[in-house]
Amino acid sequence: MNEQQKYIIGLVIYPDMFHLDITGPHQVFSQIPNAEVLLLWKSLEPVVSSGGLTILPNTTFADCPQLDVLCVPGGGFGTVEMMQDEQMLTFLQLQAQTAKYITAVCTGSLILGAAGLLQGYKATSHWAFREQLQLMGAQVITERVVSDRNRITGGGVTAGIDFALQVVAILCGEDTAKFIELLLEYNPAPPFGVGSPEKASTELVQTMKKMAAPLIEASHAASKKAASKFPSS
Amino acid sequence: MNEQQKYIIGLVIYPDMFHLDITGPHQVFSQIPNAEVLLLWKSLEPVVSSGGLTILPNTTFADCPQLDVLCVPGGGFGTVEMMQDEQMLTFLQLQAQTAKYITAVCTGSLILGAAGLLQGYKATSHWAFREQLQLMGAQVITERVVSDRNRITGGGVTAGIDFALQVVAILCGEDTAKFIELLLEYNPAPPFGVGSPEKASTELVQTMKKMAAPLIEASHAASKKAASKFPSS
Repeated sequence: MNEQQKYIIGLVIYPDMFHLDITGPHQVFSQIPNAEVLLLWKSLEPVVSSGGLTILPNTTFADCPQLDVLCVPGGGFGTVEMMQDEQMLTFLQLQAQTAKYITAVCTGSLILGAAGLLQGYKATSHWAFREQLQLMGAQVITERVVSDRNRITGGGVTAGIDFALQVVAILCGEDTAKFIELLLEYNPAPPFGVGSPEKASTELVQTMKKMAAPLIEASHAASKKAASKFPSS
Repeated sequence: MNEQQKYIIGLVIYPDMFHLDITGPHQVFSQIPNAEVLLLWKSLEPVVSSGGLTILPNTTFADCPQLDVLCVPGGGFGTVEMMQDEQMLTFLQLQAQTAKYITAVCTGSLILGAAGLLQGYKATSHWAFREQLQLMGAQVITERVVSDRNRITGGGVTAGIDFALQVVAILCGEDTAKFIELLLEYNPAPPFGVGSPEKASTELVQTMKKMAAPLIEASHAASKKAASKFPSS
């Protein structure tokens, strides 16, 4: 690894996000030697996640330097709101012009998509939402972490850890990524082995889709609305 | 699952903690129907984790109701400090008298140990620290999640997710735990497969132990000091 290289990594946060989408990557990225990890929001006011965990941003969009890595988490209805939030979309578009890597975890990719940043790219998202990326011009890939040129996206929530380790390998080399994997004792043992729709029972998948239906529908509508505004359509 | 049952789950936080030790479990626990998840500290002032992520507590030790589940995370030198912090140890001992489950993730188990709460129990911790639990009367088990009566402990950092899903299964039944495992898309794919000392190269393990030596030594000294104060010794 190149210990002299300094990286500025920006993790966007917003109300009603799934915090593990971003706390997983934060724990990984903050182990990079010489990395500066920013938690970005419109203001410095505390941000309340969907589960109630409240995180303090440390940098506003207005004060954000040019990032090497830009990362957006997913969440609940707050994510749908962000898909239509001009201040958020403009910030992402501005940073994306010269950021080395433009990334998302979980339904954060829907926000990138709504900003027009996944048109023509392979990408993924949370399993219950990933098909919606097609509406915004992305090619959906059902892998846990998907890289296409400088776009890197992860699947639902816990995929952020796998995602972040892969980003570290790209940025700093495999030795650094392996060090962090061992440091965080990332030797997972899912107790039930039902963490993907392919592994879970049809009944469980259907129950979850039914419970999530209002959010899936709202997100679908926001995806269509966003795509209708793209210059190319 | 019993949707009527209400659970009060208390996650202790403190400066220099490894936040993923507690944000992983928080994301899992906050999905339990009718769970109240408290973030506990001495005051309501923001708590800065070892990686810089700043979390707001929502309940003070003084105002904490009797918990069903008490959980303590690990971290850096802040953990060693907490192993010797009378206010922390007294709080844990008081809650442990009637909490249904007394738990820890990563080196949080060293704090439980220092409070005398693991004497005679099987337990685990982060791989580089777990042998120290013996000094405080615990029997060290090298599994990712270890249960012994009402003590439940997880291995290093990312083990908190496996740990929390197992706790949910105990509290609410397997159906709820499976639902959360699928919701969080917990179908992990560690990129390098070196997340335990048994899987990593000897060189990598030695490099990490050398880098962590000052912390390992400080923690070892605190473990011995704590054990010397136990009534039984």
